[in-house]
Amino acid sequence: MQWYFVAALLTILTSSQGILTTLSQNNGGYKYDYATVPFLAEVFKLAVSSLLLWRESRQSSLTRMTTEWKTVRLFLIPSIIYLIHNNVQFATLTYVDTSTYQIMGNLKIVTTGILFRLFLRRKLSNLQWMAIILLAVGTTTSQVKGCGESSCQSLFSAPIQGYMLGILSACLSALAGVYTEFLMKKNNDSLYWQNVQLYTCGAIFNMARLVIDDFRGSFENGPWWQRLLNGYNITTWMVVLNLGSTGLLVSWLMKYADNIVKVYSTSMAMLLTMVLSIYLFNFKPTLQLFLGIIICMMSLHMYFAPPSMLVDLPSTEKAAPDSLNEVYVERRTDS
Amino acid sequence: MQWYFVAALLTILTSSQGILTTLSQNNGGYKYDYATVPFLAEVFKLAVSSLLLWRESRQSSLTRMTTEWKTVRLFLIPSIIYLIHNNVQFATLTYVDTSTYQIMGNLKIVTTGILFRLFLRRKLSNLQWMAIILLAVGTTTSQVKGCGESSCQSLFSAPIQGYMLGILSACLSALAGVYTEFLMKKNNDSLYWQNVQLYTCGAIFNMARLVIDDFRGSFENGPWWQRLLNGYNITTWMVVLNLGSTGLLVSWLMKYADNIVKVYSTSMAMLLTMVLSIYLFNFKPTLQLFLGIIICMMSLHMYFAPPSMLVDLPSTEKAAPDSLNEVYVERRTDS
Repeated sequence: MQWYFVAALLTILTSSQGILTTLSQNNGGYKYDYATVPFLAEVFKLAVSSLLLWRESRQSSLTRMTTEWKTVRLFLIPSIIYLIHNNVQFATLTYVDTSTYQIMGNLKIVTTGILFRLFLRRKLSNLQWMAIILLAVGTTTSQVKGCGESSCQSLFSAPIQGYMLGILSACLSALAGVYTEFLMKKNNDSLYWQNVQLYTCGAIFNMARLVIDDFRGSFENGPWWQRLLNGYNITTWMVVLNLGSTGLLVSWLMKYADNIVKVYSTSMAMLLTMVLSIYLFNFKPTLQLFLGIIICMMSLHMYFAPPSMLVDLPSTEKAAPDSLNEVYVERRTDS
Repeated sequence: MQWYFVAALLTILTSSQGILTTLSQNNGGYKYDYATVPFLAEVFKLAVSSLLLWRESRQSSLTRMTTEWKTVRLFLIPSIIYLIHNNVQFATLTYVDTSTYQIMGNLKIVTTGILFRLFLRRKLSNLQWMAIILLAVGTTTSQVKGCGESSCQSLFSAPIQGYMLGILSACLSALAGVYTEFLMKKNNDSLYWQNVQLYTCGAIFNMARLVIDDFRGSFENGPWWQRLLNGYNITTWMVVLNLGSTGLLVSWLMKYADNIVKVYSTSMAMLLTMVLSIYLFNFKPTLQLFLGIIICMMSLHMYFAPPSMLVDLPSTEKAAPDSLNEVYVERRTDS
């Protein structure tokens, strides 16, 4: 399977994730407990990966599985980073509004590039660095508040702590991605075995969150396993399956491609969601969305196109009309 | 003289042109007739160029001057194109508001690139084409209306004729620039002689405009030479001298550099003016201005940096700490 096919699929699924989540809302709120969605998605991914691992190990006895605790325990780290990230995110939102938080989220693109360089020691050309910065600028441009929109004055007027936490949040998010890539590429273990370890940790951490919510709510709605599927309908299930599939594609990309490919996929998905929202939810198309799309397309081309295609001058043209005239004059003289 | 020094000077003077013009206003209006400014600027450029031509011809008898009518008459063409452009501009503004016109003005960057390729047969790499498009996108981004600003709904809601005329206007403006470059590089004539021809035509056409204004106004304020300096003060004279100097720098760039360099200079000047306006006129800095500046800086680097600097990967690093450990272990074994 080619990585760009997986990346394109990830873009489509990430985009439909946003749209399905919006469609699953009732009057702007959720009828189900949203915290159950990532838990069930982890369970779904775990089930799929276990099945694939079982099939793979039946087909060949060479399925590589490192089962030392020294290696297995590393798979806890992404879940721990995400746990910290969620809390930082929560703290950030007490200082800044959601639209500022969303704008700051684009910093993740740049921090991923930096950690990718520092932690995974991957080299990028100047042009690729510029492409990464332009991708962040492009997604930010598309989100610039148009005139006439509400919550106008809030941008860059929040307390400094809000921005510091926003930067920390971008770093943690990038760290989780880069660390996962490190884990997946660390050895030649089967992708499915690595997934099983990753998603087991994910399922446990998400379950822990449901339990904590139960304690916080003093079991008013009963324990989590009793209210797990309350308010679920077909759209909610699609949200779960879509989120799970997205996760499986990300794992694949972490092993066979890299974090930058993932960042491009999800950034393009954000733009695709905005374009689809124009048709689906009657969003007003803005000049800044149009500009943002151009910038991101340029960035994509700059990052992935072969350098020679970018910098080579077009080859010399055929004879200019002037020289044709000369030929003509010569012939007339001959005859 | 290096072209980038002249280009930087052009950026500064173009930027101060906008600021001086604003400073020369009284309560948002002009106390003088604005049409006299370009006329006097042409006269200033003509005087400077004549003086320099006289000095040059005294110093060496080799000053090249083509005086055939066949060549001289070509210098009328830029003035004629500007005359048509001014009328198209006027017609465009009957369909679209000034902010939409300003946004469409950025198209000039792309049309200059296209005519530069078609008319002057200059070759650009894919990356340079992308840089030109990004420059137009960057300047447009910086002009996106922020929330809370007036004239909100007008963008892209004007009649189609307005947009067609806007595109025509961008093409004419680019054509004038590209044709001037063609004229200046056509032969090895002295730059000053070429300037004298160019500015004589410019002065005549600008004078004709003042005469036409007189007839339109039925000589209510007397003939143009009587009211020429009405309402002039030191700032107005600085506007004239600044505009004249800008023109001289553009001529130099057309002969020794090219239209793309000029387009970068004036685009950077627009951003510089916006930044200076924050300090001088208490303009509110916007996120879109910040994003626009980043995009234009990237574009500048993409267009002018040597290709190898852009696409080469950084050279391999020094030995990683791991190998240092090995050395350390070896030494311990030795001792």
